[in-house]
Amino acid sequence: MTEPEYRRDSVVGRWVIIAPARADRPHEFVETVRPARSGPCPFCPGSEHDTPDEVAALRNLGTSANGPGWQVRIVPNKFPAVGGVLGVGAVVELGGAMVPTPALGRHEVVIETEAHAVGVGEIPLDRWTAMWRLVRDRFRELGRTAGVRYVQWFKNVGDAAGASIEHAHAQMIALDRVPEVVAGELAGAAAHHRETGRCVYCELLTHEAAEATRLVDLTPAHAAWCNYASRFSYEMIVAPRRHAADFAAQDDAGIAAAAAMLHRTLARLERACPNGAYNVVLHTAPFDSSASDHYHWHWEILPRLTKAAGFEWGAGIHLNPVAPEQAAQALRNVKPD
Amino acid sequence: MTEPEYRRDSVVGRWVIIAPARADRPHEFVETVRPARSGPCPFCPGSEHDTPDEVAALRNLGTSANGPGWQVRIVPNKFPAVGGVLGVGAVVELGGAMVPTPALGRHEVVIETEAHAVGVGEIPLDRWTAMWRLVRDRFRELGRTAGVRYVQWFKNVGDAAGASIEHAHAQMIALDRVPEVVAGELAGAAAHHRETGRCVYCELLTHEAAEATRLVDLTPAHAAWCNYASRFSYEMIVAPRRHAADFAAQDDAGIAAAAAMLHRTLARLERACPNGAYNVVLHTAPFDSSASDHYHWHWEILPRLTKAAGFEWGAGIHLNPVAPEQAAQALRNVKPD
Repeated sequence: MTEPEYRRDSVVGRWVIIAPARADRPHEFVETVRPARSGPCPFCPGSEHDTPDEVAALRNLGTSANGPGWQVRIVPNKFPAVGGVLGVGAVVELGGAMVPTPALGRHEVVIETEAHAVGVGEIPLDRWTAMWRLVRDRFRELGRTAGVRYVQWFKNVGDAAGASIEHAHAQMIALDRVPEVVAGELAGAAAHHRETGRCVYCELLTHEAAEATRLVDLTPAHAAWCNYASRFSYEMIVAPRRHAADFAAQDDAGIAAAAAMLHRTLARLERACPNGAYNVVLHTAPFDSSASDHYHWHWEILPRLTKAAGFEWGAGIHLNPVAPEQAAQALRNVKPD
Repeated sequence: MTEPEYRRDSVVGRWVIIAPARADRPHEFVETVRPARSGPCPFCPGSEHDTPDEVAALRNLGTSANGPGWQVRIVPNKFPAVGGVLGVGAVVELGGAMVPTPALGRHEVVIETEAHAVGVGEIPLDRWTAMWRLVRDRFRELGRTAGVRYVQWFKNVGDAAGASIEHAHAQMIALDRVPEVVAGELAGAAAHHRETGRCVYCELLTHEAAEATRLVDLTPAHAAWCNYASRFSYEMIVAPRRHAADFAAQDDAGIAAAAAMLHRTLARLERACPNGAYNVVLHTAPFDSSASDHYHWHWEILPRLTKAAGFEWGAGIHLNPVAPEQAAQALRNVKPD
């Protein structure tokens, strides 16, 4: 395939252009510069005083909160994107076109391991799994908090993906509303369910597993594949094969299997695209929704190897120089561990 | 203002969070690395053989196409995002969820000046104005081409904004469809017009000119202001004060006034944020639309001082650490020329 083509996302209807000729541009792929470090890492043991007090942690027996002896820490973000007191005053939309509303919520950082790892492949699987159990527990806790409708979990790896600290971490932003991208997916999935009685993600997953050209990995409980209408080169989706809308409803065994698949898949990406920056986002059903029959939780892996430029922001159409079939082949060809 | 707040865009309904506390993050603002140059600039005089043959140019009398002696050249993009033959076979949407359609169109590069300028402030105003007249003429030409419904003009300045070549240039992509972002603005503007009988951009502009806290510059025919719901720090809109939907309908005097305002405004930005990368996009009515009563052409200036990360892509909500009122004040305080 050499001619550019439009592809449309089955869930949200978004168009992208797969334009292989663009791959030949000079400097098409970003060489990631790691964030310049000055002074000690604020996320390493011994720097606990550099972060606000922890809200949850996985700790060695006998150690105290906010001191050393932890494996995973969840702390409020020092530079929060949302704030105020959730559930007090509730959500008031004031109506006028230019009347701002307080951005209520909580913005937390998950320090994923005490060792100064950068890539996920450097984090031992048992630590990664324990971390995801803690994150699942934190989702449940935040879901019980008055005023919280959604928690957006995301992870930035590398300077080009917006990471300002290299020590492996993720972020969780508890919101009083369902964000636009998730609302779009919920609407697309609900429409598909009304029309066909089926979950659009279950159908996609079954199709990708059978058709196999975009499939990256398949385990008994999970699939990883390159999105047909990928906005970003090497974009992937990781999802449970069995229908499940709510990430936080998973038991420990479910979390272990899911975490293992994400770990393998990110390790693959890190080997296929060394030093490549990427974002990972989790999309799950809102706490108060009745989306359980039609929505399907999943991770999206969004590598940042090329840059969104004027066309992407001005037109809303992503130009992707690497066809997902080609990306999947490259990803299948590296060993995940 | 220190607490984060949601703001909603009046035209498209997009929510952003203005989060001033984020401005204190280490490395919050990108230090732009200019693209590494190797070998001669492909857009400088003498390198005409490095680009495909010009489709339009402003030339000295007696010079030949594709040789030296030009001031502005429009050439096909060597690495096109769209291709094929427009108008032949027309637009066929094949229906199936995973059947791609050819991305038909033309992708052209506007080399804006023969001198190796990088910023717009380095381009003399008379050259900039002559360039915009040529771009307007090219819009008209492309608008008469069978199958073209929209031309997306955009400009990337600086590495962080996706520029791979530093020599001042812009791009025009002629499409067989109206891109998503423009379709969203058209729908928002049409809804407002149905409800109120008025153009939403005319109302916005009148409000911003009178209220003045986000106003950057006002000339008899144009206004430049920071968008109330800015996604990007220092984001601006430049628009004609008199209602006009179609950029390409402007006469030479209109182009001269508009080009002068854009030149002043970009020079301001370049002084307020030295070496800051930015995109500029032009939004105008589609060629075949009847949007003339409710749509309003404008430029959007999108500085790329912070990076879109997992939250922006995963949730669709931009985090902007600089309130537009603060940005406008900083921009007003620099001399544009």
